[in-house]
Amino acid sequence: MANFKGHALPGSFFLLFGLWWSVKYPIKFLAKRNESSRRRSSRLCFNRVELAEGVVKAVFSLVGILAEQFVPDGPHLHLMSEDSKSWVKLMNWQHSTMYLFFGISGIIDIVTYSSSWIPIGLDRLLLSLAVFIEGFLFYFHVHNRPPLDVHIHSLLLTAVFGGSFIIMMEVFLRDHIVLELFRTSLAILQGTWFWQIGFVLYPPSGGPEWNENDHGNIMFITMCFCWHYAASLLIVAISYTLVYWVMQIKLKRAGAIELGQLKVSEKNSQVSLLNGSDEE
Amino acid sequence: MANFKGHALPGSFFLLFGLWWSVKYPIKFLAKRNESSRRRSSRLCFNRVELAEGVVKAVFSLVGILAEQFVPDGPHLHLMSEDSKSWVKLMNWQHSTMYLFFGISGIIDIVTYSSSWIPIGLDRLLLSLAVFIEGFLFYFHVHNRPPLDVHIHSLLLTAVFGGSFIIMMEVFLRDHIVLELFRTSLAILQGTWFWQIGFVLYPPSGGPEWNENDHGNIMFITMCFCWHYAASLLIVAISYTLVYWVMQIKLKRAGAIELGQLKVSEKNSQVSLLNGSDEE
Amino acid sequence: MANFKGHALPGSFFLLFGLWWSVKYPIKFLAKRNESSRRRSSRLCFNRVELAEGVVKAVFSLVGILAEQFVPDGPHLHLMSEDSKSWVKLMNWQHSTMYLFFGISGIIDIVTYSSSWIPIGLDRLLLSLAVFIEGFLFYFHVHNRPPLDVHIHSLLLTAVFGGSFIIMMEVFLRDHIVLELFRTSLAILQGTWFWQIGFVLYPPSGGPEWNENDHGNIMFITMCFCWHYAASLLIVAISYTLVYWVMQIKLKRAGAIELGQLKVSEKNSQVSLLNGSDEE
Amino acid sequence: MANFKGHALPGSFFLLFGLWWSVKYPIKFLAKRNESSRRRSSRLCFNRVELAEGVVKAVFSLVGILAEQFVPDGPHLHLMSEDSKSWVKLMNWQHSTMYLFFGISGIIDIVTYSSSWIPIGLDRLLLSLAVFIEGFLFYFHVHNRPPLDVHIHSLLLTAVFGGSFIIMMEVFLRDHIVLELFRTSLAILQGTWFWQIGFVLYPPSGGPEWNENDHGNIMFITMCFCWHYAASLLIVAISYTLVYWVMQIKLKRAGAIELGQLKVSEKNSQVSLLNGSDEE
Repeated sequence: MANFKGHALPGSFFLLFGLWWSVKYPIKFLAKRNESSRRRSSRLCFNRVELAEGVVKAVFSLVGILAEQFVPDGPHLHLMSEDSKSWVKLMNWQHSTMYLFFGISGIIDIVTYSSSWIPIGLDRLLLSLAVFIEGFLFYFHVHNRPPLDVHIHSLLLTAVFGGSFIIMMEVFLRDHIVLELFRTSLAILQGTWFWQIGFVLYPPSGGPEWNENDHGNIMFITMCFCWHYAASLLIVAISYTLVYWVMQIKLKRAGAIELGQLKVSEKNSQVSLLNGSDEE
Repeated sequence: MANFKGHALPGSFFLLFGLWWSVKYPIKFLAKRNESSRRRSSRLCFNRVELAEGVVKAVFSLVGILAEQFVPDGPHLHLMSEDSKSWVKLMNWQHSTMYLFFGISGIIDIVTYSSSWIPIGLDRLLLSLAVFIEGFLFYFHVHNRPPLDVHIHSLLLTAVFGGSFIIMMEVFLRDHIVLELFRTSLAILQGTWFWQIGFVLYPPSGGPEWNENDHGNIMFITMCFCWHYAASLLIVAISYTLVYWVMQIKLKRAGAIELGQLKVSEKNSQVSLLNGSDEE
Repeated sequence: MANFKGHALPGSFFLLFGLWWSVKYPIKFLAKRNESSRRRSSRLCFNRVELAEGVVKAVFSLVGILAEQFVPDGPHLHLMSEDSKSWVKLMNWQHSTMYLFFGISGIIDIVTYSSSWIPIGLDRLLLSLAVFIEGFLFYFHVHNRPPLDVHIHSLLLTAVFGGSFIIMMEVFLRDHIVLELFRTSLAILQGTWFWQIGFVLYPPSGGPEWNENDHGNIMFITMCFCWHYAASLLIVAISYTLVYWVMQIKLKRAGAIELGQLKVSEKNSQVSLLNGSDEE
Repeated sequence: MANFKGHALPGSFFLLFGLWWSVKYPIKFLAKRNESSRRRSSRLCFNRVELAEGVVKAVFSLVGILAEQFVPDGPHLHLMSEDSKSWVKLMNWQHSTMYLFFGISGIIDIVTYSSSWIPIGLDRLLLSLAVFIEGFLFYFHVHNRPPLDVHIHSLLLTAVFGGSFIIMMEVFLRDHIVLELFRTSLAILQGTWFWQIGFVLYPPSGGPEWNENDHGNIMFITMCFCWHYAASLLIVAISYTLVYWVMQIKLKRAGAIELGQLKVSEKNSQVSLLNGSDEE
């Protein structure tokens, strides 16, 4: 679906996950800082949240695959045309393949968080691979297009491969809040940038198309990408702050320990995180 | 041997090792989780397995070198032609060189696991180097070929250099199950992809050759590579599950400790692994 | 501001920070080695220093943005020209964007060191991102220019991306003196190199311009870049030595512990640093 | 000195250091394994060895700089020609710059191992930078040359940048025997490859020059590079084995502890090494 919708949909997908992560990880981090005594129950609750995330990912991916295959102008599961001389709708097949790997990642999440026989870290590895495959296919996607089209997709690849690398690091530095917030900001960036691509290449308002060979447009779009990232950082900051405030209010109601002691316990958790353990 | 057989043979080689690893590493990981008390004997047994793997690698490499040299159209150890004006069968010499480094890796494995005076980690370093040299020679192998030929070999390089990097990380994060399974999946991918290259470039059925300049074919082959990887992941998953089931049955017969306790000990081993130790 | 001033200003900016760091980090490292008993107060003092650094960074960035926007030939916050057919002063907008991210980094520094609810490491992440964005925009900055112009900016990118990578490592290896001194030397290099670019491309003395297509000039400028780095290393070495001497004199006056014992405590701190903790 | 001598000299330099390292690091590793009780004296002895190495490096570099400047056709410290229109002997100046950084590395070694006020790890950082600068200058060295010339120098860069990266890792994983042996093998490779370059590009026997545009020659030289590396690995292996035997004999004479116990203590040292400490 090389049209506006085809970019708006994955954009929303990443935006949704990014925004959700911008709430989830602050809660997880701040909850751990505050409730070291009541942790076991909170951990169990988080496992259920991760499980739900896995289910959502798997369902989204299935929907994505079906949509790509059975839209009116889709390949309907045909890979080669009748006379077996040419491929049918390779674009849709490539998008299906991308969704497939996110689906695999979702399934691994489900198995990991609903049982105890999967090694910890595989869930991050598979998510990292799903993002890598997305970038890998995109990379060979944009040959023979006008410069602006190539450039605007290349910028996307920065966020995609950066995200894949960060998630790969999380295999070894699990529950590291800085990596998690970094990943969150890159997911939001991907989401808003997909929308931007849609608006630039397929203006929905039917407005005039951009001159795809103008060097000024390419320079602007590069800068625009940085602005998107600044906005993404702002969203993560707002989300973190809101979560902090809400948890502070709840904490005060519960008559909790003083703020002054928190800094120390956080330092400790920092150390244990680097050691790859989420136990203390 | 730039023909079907020349790709099917290394393909089988990697496939064999990949499938074997997909059984070995789950056994090792799950055995460690279960039998922390009976470990010493299990470790000794695994050392013998590693030794056998080293011997197989060394023998395969020797056979590979001899085959490349003494096939009817091979160089028979001649490097320069009589009139010393041109090189003889450089392709075969390059393949021999690749096998040589796998042979070195095999010899180091043998020495490491049969004695105690070799520093731990050298076996992984040499395996990583063998895979790197393979990719290094392939990289300069495919100049001046049609686009499809270049592309299909470039995809292979992704798996090769990825594998080399993962094994290099294992020098520092030894016995890390996520890395081991990742490496296993990349080895299987290499294996099946060598077969795919054989089928595409030298169709054994004598069918029509692929149009090597068609962009559609290149797009398809990229996606096909991802499918191979999905299949490779599936194989590893099946293998891991089967090993888990078999070990569960054996464990129940032996009246072993409850499942509920396992998760904890696994967490601990995770930490010590990251510290580069396979002792607990 | 593609003129001498436009390179001299950021040059001074980096030079200033680099020189300041070449004093700050030796003090921090040597103070920790010497005053393990009196640490708490020294830590508090350093937090105040970091806070001040954040304020300076934020103010500099604001000034930079305003200067780029409101210089006589600046865009005055107009992004598109009246007839909305072309972009206004994209160069200045790009420079404003660079300053923006350094501003964000400054704000995060301020929040991190004036409160306790921000996860440790975010300050380094944001500084790393600011430097990365600087390099990212520069990378697409220099298309379609003469070879010497491209080359002299490419050399700058080596320092920029190297710096970004080093700071990213500091997220995980916080307070690691070797990384901090390395970063310092790269910041000074950036500073002096900006000045060099100014002198080469826009000779302020009005002297003859360089032949921008002469290969000899390109070779010389590469070597000159290395000389700048040697000078930068010299500056850091001098700074470290002076700080050491001053602290020794103060220590002797305070009748402190013997020098012979220092090496040991430093070793220990080395270990704890690698573990990501600045506690011992 | 773009002639045979100009490649044979640095080749000998690297070969010498590589061979020396192939003896030093096995001794250090095996001594630590054996004499955990008598370590303090052995450490002191090794510090003196490192000091000597630093002095040799600094002296070699000074000699190198002087040679490059004052050979009959050298620049004699003139950078610009009289009429200030062109650069004088940029090649020699570039080589001088390379030597300069090795000299800086030597000086840092001397200061680090003769006093106690330099942070540990800086010596490795500066050595890594010296090697990086060597590769950096080489990279821009070989423009506009025939394909074989470019290729044979590119192969060298693999060893150079690989070595730089490995030494950079040693900043964080100090005294890691696998890294040290890896670095040793790359130094020997560099050494022998410089000689090979000399023989190919400037045959001293006055024999016929190689056809620098023949693709067969390029393929052969790639493979030849791998053979050099295999030889380098063999040298390191022989050296390690000899050192082991000599130390075993000395140990038996001293009536030392049994071999069986060694493996365990080595495992421990492995862990502590990863933690960046050479204390246990």
